[in-house]
Amino acid sequence: MSVYYMNGAFRPLEEVSLPLTDLVIQRGVGVFESVKIIGRKVLAITAHMKRLEESALGAGIKIGGTGVIDEITRALREGSLRDDCPGGGECAVAKAYITGGDAIDRGFFTAPRFFVIFSQMDPIFPEGCENGVALQPTAERRPYPLVKSINYLFGLMQTAGLDDMLECLYCPDGYATETLRSSFFVVLGGRLVTAPEGTVLKGVTRDIVIELAKADGIAVEERRPEVSEFALAEEAFITNSLYGVIPVIRIGGTAIGNGKPGPVSARLLELYDANIEKWLDR
Amino acid sequence: MSVYYMNGAFRPLEEVSLPLTDLVIQRGVGVFESVKIIGRKVLAITAHMKRLEESALGAGIKIGGTGVIDEITRALREGSLRDDCPGGGECAVAKAYITGGDAIDRGFFTAPRFFVIFSQMDPIFPEGCENGVALQPTAERRPYPLVKSINYLFGLMQTAGLDDMLECLYCPDGYATETLRSSFFVVLGGRLVTAPEGTVLKGVTRDIVIELAKADGIAVEERRPEVSEFALAEEAFITNSLYGVIPVIRIGGTAIGNGKPGPVSARLLELYDANIEKWLDR
Repeated sequence: MSVYYMNGAFRPLEEVSLPLTDLVIQRGVGVFESVKIIGRKVLAITAHMKRLEESALGAGIKIGGTGVIDEITRALREGSLRDDCPGGGECAVAKAYITGGDAIDRGFFTAPRFFVIFSQMDPIFPEGCENGVALQPTAERRPYPLVKSINYLFGLMQTAGLDDMLECLYCPDGYATETLRSSFFVVLGGRLVTAPEGTVLKGVTRDIVIELAKADGIAVEERRPEVSEFALAEEAFITNSLYGVIPVIRIGGTAIGNGKPGPVSARLLELYDANIEKWLDR
Repeated sequence: MSVYYMNGAFRPLEEVSLPLTDLVIQRGVGVFESVKIIGRKVLAITAHMKRLEESALGAGIKIGGTGVIDEITRALREGSLRDDCPGGGECAVAKAYITGGDAIDRGFFTAPRFFVIFSQMDPIFPEGCENGVALQPTAERRPYPLVKSINYLFGLMQTAGLDDMLECLYCPDGYATETLRSSFFVVLGGRLVTAPEGTVLKGVTRDIVIELAKADGIAVEERRPEVSEFALAEEAFITNSLYGVIPVIRIGGTAIGNGKPGPVSARLLELYDANIEKWLDR
């Protein structure tokens, strides 16, 4: 069961819909954030709301002075405290969207709509976190990585029918950048290597993990790993707001390390779980 | 005023909406076609419906055996004959969409929705057809050109705030391919030069114009024009289903030819208008 916030109130699914005139339907004009709710608190809410605002700005969706971000922030907090919050508010995901609405003025979207969907976490996936996952490499890239838009179709197409692949790994020009929904790291000579900001979506969990790694004495090198380095890597992992740190054991046909989750990923997930409280409702 | 066909009937706007669960809203999973209605007949309906079917297939939207294409085809014909067809059915645009729906199975979208929107043609734009238009070049490219998806956001962003630019011209790696909504041609030494199929969306009007040009003794070379050739071109033009042939007089800061619509574009538009009847309801 999901819970929906739209037009100033929490509503059932039957009351929340978009008219066919909205440009998110006709032309893919929409940006969003997925945030995690843990123990009735929202994880890293400030960083997510900042990125949502920047995505809207980058996409030309005019929300300046409208209070949209404040209202979404309030809805996230209120939704996590409600009796009907999925997972009893202990563990849930909230997706906040801002759409292009119906109006274009000189290429800008001047009458946006917005809504939030609260859902249960996928109960099957944690196995992947334990056993590691496989990624499908693609020469495609994520266009405009600083705008987290809803345009996921071409990324989803990369793994259609590939049951064993969690998601695609964008590797334009022979360099690994990020996956469809996560930041990407390899471990080389004990150091973390990950694409620098600007070439990839500004990952909220990416930043947390880098902070935790450095404090733990693990060096971090911000450059795009070469595809040719996959075979040399001791480990690889991805990070995202919903699952934290997820070990990667295979990329395409290439096994990573010994093909099993490694100690660095395990250490970072341990640090992440131990420290996550610091980022709740912050 | 617009007219909407959805769920088996023509309906007013208040009755046509999509639930927030549809993947076209959450993840940009949708394909579409824009077709022109002239004199209560649909222009090049077979070619458009074939492309819509191929787009759905390419995007992993499962419509095989569902009769969706047949129903959309019937709706287009029926809508063009209705009393409330915009423009009295003499001149209108119909946009047919197929969305991802709510269900993903192994990366395929197994419960699509579909609808058609009938609208008036923009009454302001024909001036652009007469006086010529300017295009904004971008190093971006249209991903997956054989899938006409709704993912237009990054293309729209290229011309936000640029009042004088009709739309962007994708020029990846120094080669011109197509614009956001149209096929692109330059005239070089009296020959038409345009990107080959497969590198660009299979343009319905592109194919008609190439057929008419060849029959008129105008040579057509199918290769991507180099950006460096813009300054050498006698003329440039774009083609699309709604406006036929539109002269291009400037690309970024580069004037094309003498900066005015030229005789080849004019001849092709003349041929197009004179022969368009052959493609009505065909």
